[in-house]
Amino acid sequence: MKLKILDNIPSKNDIKESKYIISDYAHETPVLTCNSINQIAGTQLYFKCENFQKVGAFKFRGAINTIMRLEEDELSKGVATHSSGNHAQALALAARIAGTTASIVMPKNAPEIKIEAVKQYGANITFCEPTLAAREKTLAEIIDKTGAWFIHPYNDYNVIAGQATCALELINQVNEIDAIITPVGGGGLLSGTLLTAKHFSKCIKVFAGEPEGAKDAYLSLKNSELIPSINPDTIADGLLTSLGDKTYPIISENIEEILLVNDEEIVLAMRLLWERMKIIVEPSGAVPLAAILREKHKFRNKNVGLILSGGNIDLNKLPFS
Amino acid sequence: MKLKILDNIPSKNDIKESKYIISDYAHETPVLTCNSINQIAGTQLYFKCENFQKVGAFKFRGAINTIMRLEEDELSKGVATHSSGNHAQALALAARIAGTTASIVMPKNAPEIKIEAVKQYGANITFCEPTLAAREKTLAEIIDKTGAWFIHPYNDYNVIAGQATCALELINQVNEIDAIITPVGGGGLLSGTLLTAKHFSKCIKVFAGEPEGAKDAYLSLKNSELIPSINPDTIADGLLTSLGDKTYPIISENIEEILLVNDEEIVLAMRLLWERMKIIVEPSGAVPLAAILREKHKFRNKNVGLILSGGNIDLNKLPFS
Repeated sequence: MKLKILDNIPSKNDIKESKYIISDYAHETPVLTCNSINQIAGTQLYFKCENFQKVGAFKFRGAINTIMRLEEDELSKGVATHSSGNHAQALALAARIAGTTASIVMPKNAPEIKIEAVKQYGANITFCEPTLAAREKTLAEIIDKTGAWFIHPYNDYNVIAGQATCALELINQVNEIDAIITPVGGGGLLSGTLLTAKHFSKCIKVFAGEPEGAKDAYLSLKNSELIPSINPDTIADGLLTSLGDKTYPIISENIEEILLVNDEEIVLAMRLLWERMKIIVEPSGAVPLAAILREKHKFRNKNVGLILSGGNIDLNKLPFS
Repeated sequence: MKLKILDNIPSKNDIKESKYIISDYAHETPVLTCNSINQIAGTQLYFKCENFQKVGAFKFRGAINTIMRLEEDELSKGVATHSSGNHAQALALAARIAGTTASIVMPKNAPEIKIEAVKQYGANITFCEPTLAAREKTLAEIIDKTGAWFIHPYNDYNVIAGQATCALELINQVNEIDAIITPVGGGGLLSGTLLTAKHFSKCIKVFAGEPEGAKDAYLSLKNSELIPSINPDTIADGLLTSLGDKTYPIISENIEEILLVNDEEIVLAMRLLWERMKIIVEPSGAVPLAAILREKHKFRNKNVGLILSGGNIDLNKLPFS
């Protein structure tokens, strides 16, 4: 059965069908617990390990969910995006699995390690100047020439529905979750998580952690309008993007609260995950734990699911000292 | 039922009973797989994650198995050892669980991070000069004064039987294992693994990886006599010890082969585990993978279990660059 591209906010059924689609390709990632971090946090934490997902991040869910919904003739023209992060790798791998071509626009100053990773998955990379305008122009030219299908990193209902499958697994893996917390950058994972909580549970509250240096979601909610970040700056390099016109409404309508954290708190939380759990989590993925440790009173004695969003980090440039 | 201290090479039943003893205290650690490392190695690898074990290393199995076999009056006098590594932490935690005191002799130049870890588990630390003679003398004085039970890091049948439970779990978790490979330092884990393979399987071959800079096991086997290392030097700091008079006979009688690796190969294998699997493995734990990558032809298209022995490493002093 071929499912169609979604052009509306994903329904309960859309999320179920997305889970069905991705089951053949994505890992059902494990949920880990850690007594010593529970003691520090004063709560019971369930870590949903998307760092163990294909390409090392939840992004693969959205990419494969979208690609697998394209018709043959659409697929034959390839897919395209601009990204220097995990979405680029996710789309490259998803395209390879689907037997099509991914064209990725990357800023020419992107880290070598990320360029290499995308190349390894067999994508075509086009480099551009490191500005949003240059990225969009270069992408438009590629799409114009090839007819490739643009898959936005987060502002796309198919991507959101894909990311929603992560929380769906989590609530099936762990009984009686009281709250889920995700990081928020562009809001794809957060939107998906909110929709899952809304449709598949009666009482789960969804929080997000956001870096102080990229707090567009926090400010947008506070001012009740979409306020993109200007020159965001944080160690959580997966969270530099701003909410989009598809993610903002879902978030503003459903979220419990956005909790801010600074870079020092992020590194501390990341170190705790590495040292106590022996798992590698990138700075963006450590943001939810940082938020819980900063606002312990909000989570005391609750069952809290944290989405460890990814584990891609350059081992030559670690923030420990 | 209280089980007795073992004073002979552990039998099949001793290993079964050890598994029964430790089940209440130690994790049954997961077995992970990784497609991309399988491709690089040209074989099917099953990683037994002792880095996720209590105290971050397999050593907890042997420590708890020994302590739980002591009689009340023995236990009341405490336990003691000399170690600056994972055995020290393991014994400290096992003693706390058993409600007794662990006295640990550590060289005064031991890394601060290891001293802190042992302190955290509530052990009494006595510092000594960083020589084997000083360690043994200091330990003897403590035992003389307190009557504490000495639990050797590896040259003890109870410790060996405890470590044997790791491979026992592995062969129950994965069907049709052809070979198992462990690191070898003092030989506790390797001896236990050999006994498990001998008693619980018909055809599993057991290999060990050993650093070239601490190749006493390799040389001992080659020369058919116990030859301790002199000034061993390797990044695999858990493997600096030499075989003992209890581990050497078990190993020499049962092992398939010891494979040497150099420090560069160890770091490369460790990096692969960190980058591809997003898990933290210490240099000693990466030795088996390093050995497989060096001698791929010996393992081609086999089902190979690797014991990732531990994940304790100072994040401030990583060997990546």
